[in-house]
Amino acid sequence: MDREQILDALRAVRAGEMTPEAALGLFAQAPYEDIGYAKIDHHRGLRNGSGEVIYGAGKTAGQIAGIVERMLAAGGENILITRMDADKAAAVAQAVPLFYDALSRVGIANRVEKPLAGSVVVASGGTSDLPVCEEAALTAEALGSRVTRLYDVGVAGLHRLLSHVEQLQSARVVVAVAGMEGALASVIGGLVDCPVIAVPTSVGYGANFGGLSALLSMLNACATGISVVNIDNGFGAGFLANRINRMKGLEE
Amino acid sequence: MDREQILDALRAVRAGEMTPEAALGLFAQAPYEDIGYAKIDHHRGLRNGSGEVIYGAGKTAGQIAGIVERMLAAGGENILITRMDADKAAAVAQAVPLFYDALSRVGIANRVEKPLAGSVVVASGGTSDLPVCEEAALTAEALGSRVTRLYDVGVAGLHRLLSHVEQLQSARVVVAVAGMEGALASVIGGLVDCPVIAVPTSVGYGANFGGLSALLSMLNACATGISVVNIDNGFGAGFLANRINRMKGLEE
Amino acid sequence: MDREQILDALRAVRAGEMTPEAALGLFAQAPYEDIGYAKIDHHRGLRNGSGEVIYGAGKTAGQIAGIVERMLAAGGENILITRMDADKAAAVAQAVPLFYDALSRVGIANRVEKPLAGSVVVASGGTSDLPVCEEAALTAEALGSRVTRLYDVGVAGLHRLLSHVEQLQSARVVVAVAGMEGALASVIGGLVDCPVIAVPTSVGYGANFGGLSALLSMLNACATGISVVNIDNGFGAGFLANRINRMKGLEE
Amino acid sequence: MDREQILDALRAVRAGEMTPEAALGLFAQAPYEDIGYAKIDHHRGLRNGSGEVIYGAGKTAGQIAGIVERMLAAGGENILITRMDADKAAAVAQAVPLFYDALSRVGIANRVEKPLAGSVVVASGGTSDLPVCEEAALTAEALGSRVTRLYDVGVAGLHRLLSHVEQLQSARVVVAVAGMEGALASVIGGLVDCPVIAVPTSVGYGANFGGLSALLSMLNACATGISVVNIDNGFGAGFLANRINRMKGLEE
Amino acid sequence: MDREQILDALRAVRAGEMTPEAALGLFAQAPYEDIGYAKIDHHRGLRNGSGEVIYGAGKTAGQIAGIVERMLAAGGENILITRMDADKAAAVAQAVPLFYDALSRVGIANRVEKPLAGSVVVASGGTSDLPVCEEAALTAEALGSRVTRLYDVGVAGLHRLLSHVEQLQSARVVVAVAGMEGALASVIGGLVDCPVIAVPTSVGYGANFGGLSALLSMLNACATGISVVNIDNGFGAGFLANRINRMKGLEE
Amino acid sequence: MDREQILDALRAVRAGEMTPEAALGLFAQAPYEDIGYAKIDHHRGLRNGSGEVIYGAGKTAGQIAGIVERMLAAGGENILITRMDADKAAAVAQAVPLFYDALSRVGIANRVEKPLAGSVVVASGGTSDLPVCEEAALTAEALGSRVTRLYDVGVAGLHRLLSHVEQLQSARVVVAVAGMEGALASVIGGLVDCPVIAVPTSVGYGANFGGLSALLSMLNACATGISVVNIDNGFGAGFLANRINRMKGLEE
Amino acid sequence: MDREQILDALRAVRAGEMTPEAALGLFAQAPYEDIGYAKIDHHRGLRNGSGEVIYGAGKTAGQIAGIVERMLAAGGENILITRMDADKAAAVAQAVPLFYDALSRVGIANRVEKPLAGSVVVASGGTSDLPVCEEAALTAEALGSRVTRLYDVGVAGLHRLLSHVEQLQSARVVVAVAGMEGALASVIGGLVDCPVIAVPTSVGYGANFGGLSALLSMLNACATGISVVNIDNGFGAGFLANRINRMKGLEE
Amino acid sequence: MDREQILDALRAVRAGEMTPEAALGLFAQAPYEDIGYAKIDHHRGLRNGSGEVIYGAGKTAGQIAGIVERMLAAGGENILITRMDADKAAAVAQAVPLFYDALSRVGIANRVEKPLAGSVVVASGGTSDLPVCEEAALTAEALGSRVTRLYDVGVAGLHRLLSHVEQLQSARVVVAVAGMEGALASVIGGLVDCPVIAVPTSVGYGANFGGLSALLSMLNACATGISVVNIDNGFGAGFLANRINRMKGLEE
Repeated sequence: MDREQILDALRAVRAGEMTPEAALGLFAQAPYEDIGYAKIDHHRGLRNGSGEVIYGAGKTAGQIAGIVERMLAAGGENILITRMDADKAAAVAQAVPLFYDALSRVGIANRVEKPLAGSVVVASGGTSDLPVCEEAALTAEALGSRVTRLYDVGVAGLHRLLSHVEQLQSARVVVAVAGMEGALASVIGGLVDCPVIAVPTSVGYGANFGGLSALLSMLNACATGISVVNIDNGFGAGFLANRINRMKGLEE
Repeated sequence: MDREQILDALRAVRAGEMTPEAALGLFAQAPYEDIGYAKIDHHRGLRNGSGEVIYGAGKTAGQIAGIVERMLAAGGENILITRMDADKAAAVAQAVPLFYDALSRVGIANRVEKPLAGSVVVASGGTSDLPVCEEAALTAEALGSRVTRLYDVGVAGLHRLLSHVEQLQSARVVVAVAGMEGALASVIGGLVDCPVIAVPTSVGYGANFGGLSALLSMLNACATGISVVNIDNGFGAGFLANRINRMKGLEE
Repeated sequence: MDREQILDALRAVRAGEMTPEAALGLFAQAPYEDIGYAKIDHHRGLRNGSGEVIYGAGKTAGQIAGIVERMLAAGGENILITRMDADKAAAVAQAVPLFYDALSRVGIANRVEKPLAGSVVVASGGTSDLPVCEEAALTAEALGSRVTRLYDVGVAGLHRLLSHVEQLQSARVVVAVAGMEGALASVIGGLVDCPVIAVPTSVGYGANFGGLSALLSMLNACATGISVVNIDNGFGAGFLANRINRMKGLEE
Repeated sequence: MDREQILDALRAVRAGEMTPEAALGLFAQAPYEDIGYAKIDHHRGLRNGSGEVIYGAGKTAGQIAGIVERMLAAGGENILITRMDADKAAAVAQAVPLFYDALSRVGIANRVEKPLAGSVVVASGGTSDLPVCEEAALTAEALGSRVTRLYDVGVAGLHRLLSHVEQLQSARVVVAVAGMEGALASVIGGLVDCPVIAVPTSVGYGANFGGLSALLSMLNACATGISVVNIDNGFGAGFLANRINRMKGLEE
Repeated sequence: MDREQILDALRAVRAGEMTPEAALGLFAQAPYEDIGYAKIDHHRGLRNGSGEVIYGAGKTAGQIAGIVERMLAAGGENILITRMDADKAAAVAQAVPLFYDALSRVGIANRVEKPLAGSVVVASGGTSDLPVCEEAALTAEALGSRVTRLYDVGVAGLHRLLSHVEQLQSARVVVAVAGMEGALASVIGGLVDCPVIAVPTSVGYGANFGGLSALLSMLNACATGISVVNIDNGFGAGFLANRINRMKGLEE
Repeated sequence: MDREQILDALRAVRAGEMTPEAALGLFAQAPYEDIGYAKIDHHRGLRNGSGEVIYGAGKTAGQIAGIVERMLAAGGENILITRMDADKAAAVAQAVPLFYDALSRVGIANRVEKPLAGSVVVASGGTSDLPVCEEAALTAEALGSRVTRLYDVGVAGLHRLLSHVEQLQSARVVVAVAGMEGALASVIGGLVDCPVIAVPTSVGYGANFGGLSALLSMLNACATGISVVNIDNGFGAGFLANRINRMKGLEE
Repeated sequence: MDREQILDALRAVRAGEMTPEAALGLFAQAPYEDIGYAKIDHHRGLRNGSGEVIYGAGKTAGQIAGIVERMLAAGGENILITRMDADKAAAVAQAVPLFYDALSRVGIANRVEKPLAGSVVVASGGTSDLPVCEEAALTAEALGSRVTRLYDVGVAGLHRLLSHVEQLQSARVVVAVAGMEGALASVIGGLVDCPVIAVPTSVGYGANFGGLSALLSMLNACATGISVVNIDNGFGAGFLANRINRMKGLEE
Repeated sequence: MDREQILDALRAVRAGEMTPEAALGLFAQAPYEDIGYAKIDHHRGLRNGSGEVIYGAGKTAGQIAGIVERMLAAGGENILITRMDADKAAAVAQAVPLFYDALSRVGIANRVEKPLAGSVVVASGGTSDLPVCEEAALTAEALGSRVTRLYDVGVAGLHRLLSHVEQLQSARVVVAVAGMEGALASVIGGLVDCPVIAVPTSVGYGANFGGLSALLSMLNACATGISVVNIDNGFGAGFLANRINRMKGLEE
């Protein structure tokens, strides 16, 4: 319900083309479409990018397919579906054209080639963090960002990370994914001059407490330029990374 | 110790102008200056911006003044000093030219007028969040960002926030500062298309647990495009906001 | 053991119609009926409403059916059974007439049409919160309240919530159900003048910590007129909403 | 910005009496008054009751007095000021007519006699809970509710509580205030048929953890009809109690 | 290795009947018997009572049976086995004579009638607490205490508890078992003059956090004469209750 | 309001000597005396012992003195006052005869020599635990128990504890007071056959978290016969220890 | 990338045998070998010992076998694989020669007899801690340390621990493994003069909170010379124990 | 009470030179000296090193001086006193010869030059960690270890740490002290082959939670060879570092 739409409606009211009551009603109903089990505007902000997003957890395969069909009917491309397990994906693939990545549980309906731009680096501490990494990477790619993957560069073997300093320093945004002690974000934060999005993962055991250790570690990072998203939230990091990566230049 | 410097040293070694041992020594000593109680490169990343930063808490006025003097000698301008209480500020002001904001406990040594660019909005839930807000705003300004302040627009009185939607939507970055339940970040995240940096504050009482309620709330924000910094970390948010605000455009 | 019953017994003692010892025994035994595995007065307070309640979790189907049969024998109608999974429901339905809602796991034995009164709005942030919502709504309805459902109106898409402001403002009580960051309660609390009962849900992941983030958020809500029940406690919210909804007017 | 005001503005636009742009501006500016350090509409909802509320913590005496003066100029009566310590109160009393209760740190500016109605019982477990109790009681009274105080009736001496059963059972709302193990709410919840608002307090030591023990206890209360507000939040409980107490009767 | 045994050994050394080295070896090896997977003295303290105890969790049926056989060979009676699930019990019963209670998962090998003495009351808040209650009750009985069970007397229906005041007041020890808000311990503590052992249970949901709410509640109980054991630790409570119940009188 | 008093009142009613209404009123008012700021029956249970108890924290010196005067008027002896700091004690001592122990902040008004009986051992891990120890010891002594103090016998120097095994084993109850890791309770629990009351203290630093480490340690003690009271709750432990110590013998 | 290698490369550059660019490339690529799903240098530090280590959790049997094959090809012996469950082990054993211990889930590929040296004692509180103990013991043995196992010597039966004092005191390092209250570390710490590595385990229930009670207990140990590793981290303790055990003597 | 002493006593008993009762008494009294407020054997283990240790917190200056005087009388040198604030130190210095370091609050009585041996590196993340660092360093030095200080080498400026790799790699033990995110331990752990003792500090703010973030981070360190001591426990780390540093070589 943006400013222009409000003004348009108000102008129609002034012109006598619309009653005030109708205008109020319009405000209330316009911006989403209700298909019973969902209101298909859940990721409105994404329309400005290059795809749509459906959160797959807690939805049945039938519901997911139904939403996708509506979106396809509206001309949707590269429709992102996150946290969809393999069984649901198989069922959805019966109904609509679907790319599916089992590791990250990400699906993309009606996938079409699109030019990728900019530079997002997704770096991970260990191999166990890969599902979260790929959720971030596939999300950013589906939205139009070029992604470089630097996996298994944890701080315990610093030379592996340092051997990729050049790639890190040429990024526009870095997504730093790490479980356990989450030190990767701090170390990368000290090496680059671009924004760093830290993703704590629940990988680990014992006093890891489901990702709490990495979360606290990243929030307390001593380096500057770092912010944090929820534990295991690869989608959120990939979405935000794309938003930053695709920013227009500053008109000074 | 960037790639070029390493290559230069290696070339000098090849040319016989430097022994290998000297090169190794060089690597180890170059990038910072040690004045005993501090190594003045603590915020190296900032040099690419438009100022320097000193974390004031846990340093004596004498130490702060000493570091500032070294920076001034090196031509420093708009040197930022955070978390410096009023007593220390008065003492530092004896030694060096100092602007000081008592609310946010931010000082700026050798403050000079500089052109501000872009658009950072700092929004707060209530008046008690102002010290954190101003730390963020003054930091971003010292680094060269134009800042709009939207204070006291908490979600309990939604009309106040909605009346500033236009300002929010024209921002390049929004810093959302809130204590108590921290809902401001989610609501703003649903209204804008730019990155949102959420800053939980320790404002509140009871089950607020020193900012934990706002922190968890912001990490779990249902809107996209939001990331979080540490509780009360206005400096971190302002620093990151400036970094994002001043990004160059994407060459697609 | 209310005042009148005590006085009656005391009068009977004074009249010599009852020994003191018998009176004491009476006090101890009257108010409930013991059928071995249960004392059927578990929800005495409900009798003042229009139904009875059985907490289904931790009871066998046989026990539930047994309690219902006793209640039916005593003329019970609209007997509410909460947290009863589908298997138990199927078994109970063999023994007694049963309405069952699989989503909320609520059963109603000997369901009869009753006039509904007043206005309770149950609002939810997302579709995953529906089981808790329906537990609240069915409970309030079984006790005699008219319920309006406003689902999937989370704060990330504020226009969906605002488009229902009129319904919210005409409610006598609002039950606000939300997981993740739980901001819905605060936002609704700022829009209405009636009591708001907030129900945090365990929906979410990562730093959600089983509903803790929404719980703390709601307890710290900056709006007034809000109180909170336990995580996922739809029954408690529906019960209390009915109690408030059906209050008699104030005789000033 | 209620529905009627929106419709009025729209009608004025239709009548050509107002431009669309002016209408939009009106929406944005009308509902609060900005006096620099505060936006005086912080407790808009209260206007429907019988007083105004200022949260005193984190405001200077000068700011409080300034807000009160504006409210008095607008005809305000019984203006409530919470969490104001004695020093501030003395300073405010220099500027405006002020009633002040040191125990609860509640002030009431321009206090006038008003008829009290209904029946709110405020019950406490121990004498240390009195500041929170009085904050609740004075709030409810300032808003027009008749309040009965039942203090020091904790469950460890059950006969003291039971000796007041009649008063409890005649209440329209009970506010149950308790620290330590917070059992008072459960026990009262089992004795009455009206809504119970539980207020955990931070009174206690050791594994009390600043009120956490009472908070968890109350959230897990086994009795029905109970909801909980934040730790030590007497104002919130008193405000909500008044709202429930003053409800109109149900038109069935 | 009690005082008498040490003295005996020392006397034997003095008498030249034992070398010092042998004595030291004796001290090290005497008090337990090692059968490989267990050292059968795990509950030495119990020998002073009337039975032996084996902690069944984490042991195989074969190991349990093996330990029991050794104990039987040594003349053991009423050998208690706790936390043994039904499958293990069936297997153990093949090898040794076994009484088994499926609800509490307690087994008793070579059960013999013994006179019970004193008076332990085990009281519970709800029916879901029964497994813990029975673990406590069967333990105390196996050790020689007479036990009275008062189940489902939670504080939400206070009259049920009050109707058993006489039984409570005639106890030598009360074991108060409750989940959720754990208020039962405080209320009973205010009614009796004997020691109360509180057992928090993990029964509940949401902010119960696996028994934490009841645990904190009981630790903060406002009544005197109460102490607490670990969550769900029925065995520990029953063991201690028996120890207190069977105390000898004070020789003043 | 014990059984006998109820029966007496009922008999009086039957005899026509009392109206039923009067009886009900009697039940409600009898058992405590209200002096405004306190209801002097706060520790009714203690009357069966040999003293009275006033919780001094959160009461003014005037209030404490007032309560003591009433108790003295009623013939009170050895009136215990806990958590009373030195300033209050000095003021109270102006008004009534007072013994005061500054270390434990325990006062005893109208202290008279009384025979002590039985055997309570209070053992502590370190010297910093002494205030809690003395609160326990003085409480038990004021109530009539003979107390042996074994201080500074922490498990890091096991020989010091073992050198007192005989004293430990001759106790009727042991109070084990320890901060830091709280291991003392487990070790003592393995050495004695009497009940052990464990008191965690907040002594320590870092991951001690205000006594949480010792509290959890003691709740998880691997030895049997141990129960726990609140952190730093010396009074509670001393009170319970006396209750157990003074138990009458079992009539088998 | 150790000093010598850097110097060698620099010397080669000086000698004209290597270009600076090649040297930089060398630094970046040398120290690990990338086989797609893993970078086989994950435990570089171990090469100085006598084996290699693969963390088995989160890797498929195929991946584990693949890594082992590469290591065997490079002449690897005693290759340690931790946290590998039995199914994976069976599959891996098809491909490479494998010793497997089901209790600790430790595998050793190409196991060869090697001389063991020094003295590491692994002590445990109870039998349930054995899997963690054996992970520690097998790790230390695979790396070349002689290990003595002292199992089931918990502090509740102190004589069992004391009977092994001599073995404890002859150790060069002690690994103290305990769940529940974790007191074993403190008691052992008081008995020996060598470093003690404490391993908290998640063994226990209730307020154990997944090993938190033992962890906090061990961090707060009152004895000196103790440090702690993560909950259940037998591998980490065994690795560190070997490192300390095999230290060279001090050249004073 | 070591093996030899026991054997000696036993031999004396056998020889008839000592009664068994006397032997038992001897065992109980020998190993410490009781001076009322302290038992001077609190740090017995230290005697094998080169100094004595007194924990200063919670002791009066008089008590500290008293203990030192006894130790001096027994020939003590380099007596370490930790956590002693400046006021106490001044008072103690009146009575005994005292070296005092105000930063770390460490005192050393009767300080004498001693040869230092081996190599302990104490590294810190930031300047705020210095008090903890110095407590560790002075402790290790007082006990005879040579200490190298590497301060302000936090991971945000990795080049500063890398420039000291050689010093790190030549250490026998590294003490890694860090607050905030505690990443220093992991990074150092990946660079060295010797044991690393990690000390989390409470330096930081917000979600640091008094050192919890660094503590969890260090416990979850992905590098091997690391163990952790309590938050801010510089003494514990220095003591253990010395113990490891001074280990004798392995006789293989």
